[in-house]
Amino acid sequence: MKFLPKMGRKLRRLKTKVRKLDLVHESARKKALQESCETYKNHMDNEFEVPIKIPKLSRSTKEAFLSDGSFHQAVGRVLIVAEFFAMMPVKGVTGKHPSNLSFSWRSIRTCFSLLFIASSLANFGLSLFKVLNNPISFNSVKPIIFRGSVLLVLMVALNLARQWPQLMMYWHTVEKDLPQYKTQLAKWKMGHTISMVMLVGMMLSFAEHILSMVSAINYASFCNRTADPIQNYFLRTNDEIFFVASYSAPLAVWGKFQNVYSTFIWNYMDMFVMMVSIGLASKFQQLNDDLRNFKGMNMAPTYWSERRIQYRNICILCEKMDNAISLITMVSFSNNLYFICVQLLRSLNTMPSVAHAVYFYFSLIFLIGRTLAVSLYSASVHDESRLTLRYLRCVPKESWCPEVKRFSEEVISDVVALSGMKFFHLTRNLVLSVAGTIVTYELVLIQFHEDNDLWDCNQSYYS
Amino acid sequence: MKFLPKMGRKLRRLKTKVRKLDLVHESARKKALQESCETYKNHMDNEFEVPIKIPKLSRSTKEAFLSDGSFHQAVGRVLIVAEFFAMMPVKGVTGKHPSNLSFSWRSIRTCFSLLFIASSLANFGLSLFKVLNNPISFNSVKPIIFRGSVLLVLMVALNLARQWPQLMMYWHTVEKDLPQYKTQLAKWKMGHTISMVMLVGMMLSFAEHILSMVSAINYASFCNRTADPIQNYFLRTNDEIFFVASYSAPLAVWGKFQNVYSTFIWNYMDMFVMMVSIGLASKFQQLNDDLRNFKGMNMAPTYWSERRIQYRNICILCEKMDNAISLITMVSFSNNLYFICVQLLRSLNTMPSVAHAVYFYFSLIFLIGRTLAVSLYSASVHDESRLTLRYLRCVPKESWCPEVKRFSEEVISDVVALSGMKFFHLTRNLVLSVAGTIVTYELVLIQFHEDNDLWDCNQSYYS
Amino acid sequence: MKFLPKMGRKLRRLKTKVRKLDLVHESARKKALQESCETYKNHMDNEFEVPIKIPKLSRSTKEAFLSDGSFHQAVGRVLIVAEFFAMMPVKGVTGKHPSNLSFSWRSIRTCFSLLFIASSLANFGLSLFKVLNNPISFNSVKPIIFRGSVLLVLMVALNLARQWPQLMMYWHTVEKDLPQYKTQLAKWKMGHTISMVMLVGMMLSFAEHILSMVSAINYASFCNRTADPIQNYFLRTNDEIFFVASYSAPLAVWGKFQNVYSTFIWNYMDMFVMMVSIGLASKFQQLNDDLRNFKGMNMAPTYWSERRIQYRNICILCEKMDNAISLITMVSFSNNLYFICVQLLRSLNTMPSVAHAVYFYFSLIFLIGRTLAVSLYSASVHDESRLTLRYLRCVPKESWCPEVKRFSEEVISDVVALSGMKFFHLTRNLVLSVAGTIVTYELVLIQFHEDNDLWDCNQSYYS
Amino acid sequence: MKFLPKMGRKLRRLKTKVRKLDLVHESARKKALQESCETYKNHMDNEFEVPIKIPKLSRSTKEAFLSDGSFHQAVGRVLIVAEFFAMMPVKGVTGKHPSNLSFSWRSIRTCFSLLFIASSLANFGLSLFKVLNNPISFNSVKPIIFRGSVLLVLMVALNLARQWPQLMMYWHTVEKDLPQYKTQLAKWKMGHTISMVMLVGMMLSFAEHILSMVSAINYASFCNRTADPIQNYFLRTNDEIFFVASYSAPLAVWGKFQNVYSTFIWNYMDMFVMMVSIGLASKFQQLNDDLRNFKGMNMAPTYWSERRIQYRNICILCEKMDNAISLITMVSFSNNLYFICVQLLRSLNTMPSVAHAVYFYFSLIFLIGRTLAVSLYSASVHDESRLTLRYLRCVPKESWCPEVKRFSEEVISDVVALSGMKFFHLTRNLVLSVAGTIVTYELVLIQFHEDNDLWDCNQSYYS
Repeated sequence: MKFLPKMGRKLRRLKTKVRKLDLVHESARKKALQESCETYKNHMDNEFEVPIKIPKLSRSTKEAFLSDGSFHQAVGRVLIVAEFFAMMPVKGVTGKHPSNLSFSWRSIRTCFSLLFIASSLANFGLSLFKVLNNPISFNSVKPIIFRGSVLLVLMVALNLARQWPQLMMYWHTVEKDLPQYKTQLAKWKMGHTISMVMLVGMMLSFAEHILSMVSAINYASFCNRTADPIQNYFLRTNDEIFFVASYSAPLAVWGKFQNVYSTFIWNYMDMFVMMVSIGLASKFQQLNDDLRNFKGMNMAPTYWSERRIQYRNICILCEKMDNAISLITMVSFSNNLYFICVQLLRSLNTMPSVAHAVYFYFSLIFLIGRTLAVSLYSASVHDESRLTLRYLRCVPKESWCPEVKRFSEEVISDVVALSGMKFFHLTRNLVLSVAGTIVTYELVLIQFHEDNDLWDCNQSYYS
Repeated sequence: MKFLPKMGRKLRRLKTKVRKLDLVHESARKKALQESCETYKNHMDNEFEVPIKIPKLSRSTKEAFLSDGSFHQAVGRVLIVAEFFAMMPVKGVTGKHPSNLSFSWRSIRTCFSLLFIASSLANFGLSLFKVLNNPISFNSVKPIIFRGSVLLVLMVALNLARQWPQLMMYWHTVEKDLPQYKTQLAKWKMGHTISMVMLVGMMLSFAEHILSMVSAINYASFCNRTADPIQNYFLRTNDEIFFVASYSAPLAVWGKFQNVYSTFIWNYMDMFVMMVSIGLASKFQQLNDDLRNFKGMNMAPTYWSERRIQYRNICILCEKMDNAISLITMVSFSNNLYFICVQLLRSLNTMPSVAHAVYFYFSLIFLIGRTLAVSLYSASVHDESRLTLRYLRCVPKESWCPEVKRFSEEVISDVVALSGMKFFHLTRNLVLSVAGTIVTYELVLIQFHEDNDLWDCNQSYYS
Repeated sequence: MKFLPKMGRKLRRLKTKVRKLDLVHESARKKALQESCETYKNHMDNEFEVPIKIPKLSRSTKEAFLSDGSFHQAVGRVLIVAEFFAMMPVKGVTGKHPSNLSFSWRSIRTCFSLLFIASSLANFGLSLFKVLNNPISFNSVKPIIFRGSVLLVLMVALNLARQWPQLMMYWHTVEKDLPQYKTQLAKWKMGHTISMVMLVGMMLSFAEHILSMVSAINYASFCNRTADPIQNYFLRTNDEIFFVASYSAPLAVWGKFQNVYSTFIWNYMDMFVMMVSIGLASKFQQLNDDLRNFKGMNMAPTYWSERRIQYRNICILCEKMDNAISLITMVSFSNNLYFICVQLLRSLNTMPSVAHAVYFYFSLIFLIGRTLAVSLYSASVHDESRLTLRYLRCVPKESWCPEVKRFSEEVISDVVALSGMKFFHLTRNLVLSVAGTIVTYELVLIQFHEDNDLWDCNQSYYS
Repeated sequence: MKFLPKMGRKLRRLKTKVRKLDLVHESARKKALQESCETYKNHMDNEFEVPIKIPKLSRSTKEAFLSDGSFHQAVGRVLIVAEFFAMMPVKGVTGKHPSNLSFSWRSIRTCFSLLFIASSLANFGLSLFKVLNNPISFNSVKPIIFRGSVLLVLMVALNLARQWPQLMMYWHTVEKDLPQYKTQLAKWKMGHTISMVMLVGMMLSFAEHILSMVSAINYASFCNRTADPIQNYFLRTNDEIFFVASYSAPLAVWGKFQNVYSTFIWNYMDMFVMMVSIGLASKFQQLNDDLRNFKGMNMAPTYWSERRIQYRNICILCEKMDNAISLITMVSFSNNLYFICVQLLRSLNTMPSVAHAVYFYFSLIFLIGRTLAVSLYSASVHDESRLTLRYLRCVPKESWCPEVKRFSEEVISDVVALSGMKFFHLTRNLVLSVAGTIVTYELVLIQFHEDNDLWDCNQSYYS
């Protein structure tokens, strides 16, 4: 008879066990895996803890190293420069936390920006007037396209400034949730890349501007309309102003100011797209770095679930940023495409002087290089987002679970990339087709080329 | 011994429970989720109930607000206008319910439509005769293409009218089954957009026609063949008629009537494609709105199953509509492409007068704008259908079930879009490649341009 | 105590039931479904049984109706025609069963075919010699391309003839396994379509040849080199022969024979691609018809498994046929593309006579129509293969099983279509891009056209 | 009472069985399958064991047959040839095992390679100088592009040489793990194909060089600047040297040496891409052969899991190789495209002599043939990687398990192919679009062709 209670108890246990039937397997595995992960993590941490005990660091280097690796901090100094050039009038860009960011219509920055927009509008109107009073050709509309794009970008940047605080807050939320950087070096990397891109870009742009001035002075003296060389120079570089007004020093200064600022903004829009691309790509990289650390290991489903949600968050961030800047991207790309075509068309003609040749080839190479840089940096967002798949492919058979499956299917089917108003996605493929288009166009041009007199004195000179 | 019956009962319970093993989990979760959903729904309803308690509404506004948000009601007034212009002779388009729709070969509308088709056929024959008696070029076939497309669209519209009642009934079935609109505003939106598009389109088309008349009168007086300015005008705008017949007032009136109607129909085909696109996109939007309300929440599998079937139904509706109108879409797109190319080719020539220049640029910008509008509105069907994926991506891990998986896979792999006879799908990508084609063509043209005398007096003038 | 045995029995039953736990659900459902299917099937059969009880049928019609719907029977008569024109020398093409098919190098058909290949080779050599002795242009290589393609197709057809018996046997195996046709009408359809396509194609081709003769006679008398009009005609249409040899009646007859046969074969290769496409598409259709009959119903997994394997078999059949005929497809497509471009280029010139104009436009329209027909018929294979997805989308939630999932994933990811040597797949998309290419090419041509004297008397005339 | 213990035992068994519930099915099936596989394998082995018992084999054939089928052994002799031409200075390329491979900056091979790079750099500088001192055109930059690519490839090859030992070790690891070859013939195949491709390529390249010399001698005597025919020849073929220096024998010898080596390297880069492609494709083939052997059979999940990991490994190998050689691929493709365009452009001109015509057409056909060969061989990597899917489609319903599903999803979604710096993937599709581009370009050229005097005596001649 004593078998019965035993049996009863066994039955009760059986009952429970049947219920837990499909939970047992998983939890047991989970525990084992998490233990192994813990060990691995500790190992990794130890491994990395040593090298950062570098004894002496200069104060500035230390500061750089102690950056928290956030995008907000990385772009702070870059945005300050932009604000100096009347773009993106946001307050608090150098603050420690994105919550300090704010936009106000009444701030001095916004007023300066609005003032410059008005000034650019006037300049654009003058250019338009001059162009419409001359026969229109692919080459002659260059000043309108140049000034028009600058104006458009200025207005988009003003609008972007209003959204910037929220965008940075969202970015902050995504960043906080991502797997932490293992080393100070990794934290420092994104900010450093952005600064370097900005520095190199600005320096080359400055060099080009100097060369353009030299070449313009040279040109002005060659065409010399008046005795005063300075007047000659301004008459040439601001022909749209002096087409309607007679020469006066204040107007010349205004024109010069307008030219310098426009050139900066024209360069800055490419830098800005690169900057955002570097930021987004580095966030994907941060996730991928974590996945690489655990590549081929048996991870618990919760690990994958977390990563999937982080991946999703970066995708959403990507979309938000794309919505905010896609007009700038569009303008930047079509501008570069147009200017390359125009410059290549000009390259077929003989140069009037050595100064021109040097300026021309420097500016052409700078233009192509910059276009390539924007294309490749922005394509890197897409490339990094696809890279995640590589680590998912190596998940061992045992820890292949619905979460990994869902993650990998999402990575496969989503196209995560910056876009030109959703009309085209910025991928490496696009670079090829753009290059192909340019080459084809050039081949046709070369084949049927007759030397047009594009360098005559009546032509609008400056950009 | 009393343990045994107890055990027996336990066993019986166990037996039942083992059977229910895989149902328990789900039902428990379902209940919990539905409760939370109920709460959420109530919350949402309350939130939205307040704003619609707007105190005083004018009668007409009230009526508009009380629309049931169906496509049938939204397009009613638009189709009435079409019937006035001899298209789509369906009875009951302004009725409350699609079951009132009917088509009959003997109705007065159908007769009018058939009569106008016959009249257009005669006009087309005359145009063809004139064109074949002159050297053929890309530019000179314009009248045939214009009148030919109008004729084709008229016939397709007649055929569409026969299917319209069934189509609207199917549409009604799909709509009834969709998640209900939360607010009167949402119901009112689609109808409002369609009306606005129609209104703006028709007004611009009317403005263009007036300008065309002004420019033609100007042109006729410049070329003046006869003393009578009115006769001159008709001789120019209906040159295909007076190429075979001598001038007579009734013929001139017929020609004018033909021109006005043709112009309307030529514009209307674009409007029609936009209208259907807005309708389809808004149905996807209705579904997406519901999904957004429950984004990130734990929903029962039946919720997803319902949504999937609703999504499927809209897809089928999309395909049915595409089959019915894809010939119109094809004609509309190729027409726009051809006319943009011809107009851009003409734009290289110097204009004979200011009236011409104004008309020409207005009509060119209207044409490009309209083409862009058709492209973007029809691409929005595809965009909205893809948007669903965004909400499926946010389904939490716990409620990820086979139904959600199936739903998301269907959204990924299906290409839901209007098409041009299945040869191309109307997506944002298409817009880019069409724009690219036009730009390339123009670049080649500009490069090798010699001023053709496209504005001479012997040229066929009116479109 | 009597509870115990009862309990024991219950336990035993429980034990069995636990084992069957995951089979119960399915089998129960299966039974229910199959019953409903049976009812449905009977209903369908009854529905279709009535209409075929048509009282009186003429003997030939009856025979046609009693065809077993196999591809072998459908193409029998078409292949007999080909054999008459020295192509595809297979024995037993009109036999009831594909097992009667055989190929032998010693059969009279093969000898005839080889003889004609030798004769064509000689003719090709003569053409090549003539072309190389004149300046080469896009237009002047026409005879080489024409005769070269015919020669290539002849050789491919000979090789295909050797594989034909095995191919037809495989086709037979696939067909036997497919769901049976419900009606005699469905069986009869594929054969009828193939015959109609062949008949219309051959008649138009014959009409074109007659017109070409009329135009050539007209042309010969205009250029008349000698007094004899017949001699003139042959001198013109076989200029490649009389470029090296002086005129003689046997040579003229040989040339004429060569021309007639070449023209037939040139047309036949398009017909052949269409024929195979219709066959393959109709097999997919047969499967889709069965799926449509059970659309939205709860079917057992075995049903889906069977359909999947049948689908797979047709895909494999498709690939086998594609491997066998893809060279013919390639030649047919590139030929059509080249000839359309050449003819369009010629169309810009003024015609020397009305006979020429009639022949020219008839032949151009026939060429474009035939190209379009080949494109669309071969694209239909791909279209039909994708259609299967539509029925899989409607599988109800309850019968969604791994087999349906696997089936639908295979349909989504496979590209089933005929191809041009795997370089391009024949889909509707291809038609668009080919049309786009032709239009672009024509636009460039038209823009820069100068009237070339393509119709001079020294030009090689006959295609 | 004796029922109770029995029941207890039954319960215990039941308990165990419930736990094993979902393992039973699988393990039973596994056993049965593995048995059938074992039988099949034995059968296969027996089948293949007989044919390799070929009685007498010559020693060299035997050696070839006894190769272990590794890529390292297959490319050994090919790399020795490259080293002779100053490329890829790796030690131990003919060793039995890749572990013997080593690279050292101080080895004689590396020094020779560096020396030749310096020499090429000088030559490139001279070419650049000459070209910049003449008007630039599509045709005139040929020498720079030729010498520039050779220089670039030399440097990439040097860098590749450093990575070669690790790459070959990785390759070895992957190969060891793959399913073994069944026959000696299969082992021997890859090595044989690579040797044949190399042999044929080198012989044709040599023949072309001889022809080029004959034609250049012919040309030099025609233009003769000096009395000495040898001097004339060198003055023409090394005009970039004698543009800055006066004629001297050592310089002529250096120029000749430079030409011979450059030509070899220019050809070798295509051979190299083909070689790697053949190697990668044959690894996929090895896997596919194994899958074909078990096609349609019931295999255990472990079988699929193993195959999937092997497939993954080859994919990773593919990516590693692609990263290492993609710059070479890029240079090879753009070079071929450029040279085909230039040669086709030249083909429109009349040839100065028969020797020129023979050389020109031979070199053109060789160029097109080589380009086609590179394209098709490199596309075969992609084709073979997709072929795996065919066998996965035939997995029977019973053995369809998550591993097969994962495997097939990975094959579907991955694009495994060599690439040109990730800008384009080498697939059959690319071949078509490249061919299309060339044809379009040629059509435009032909249409607007005016005979340019590309064969004048002042033109840079060699390559």
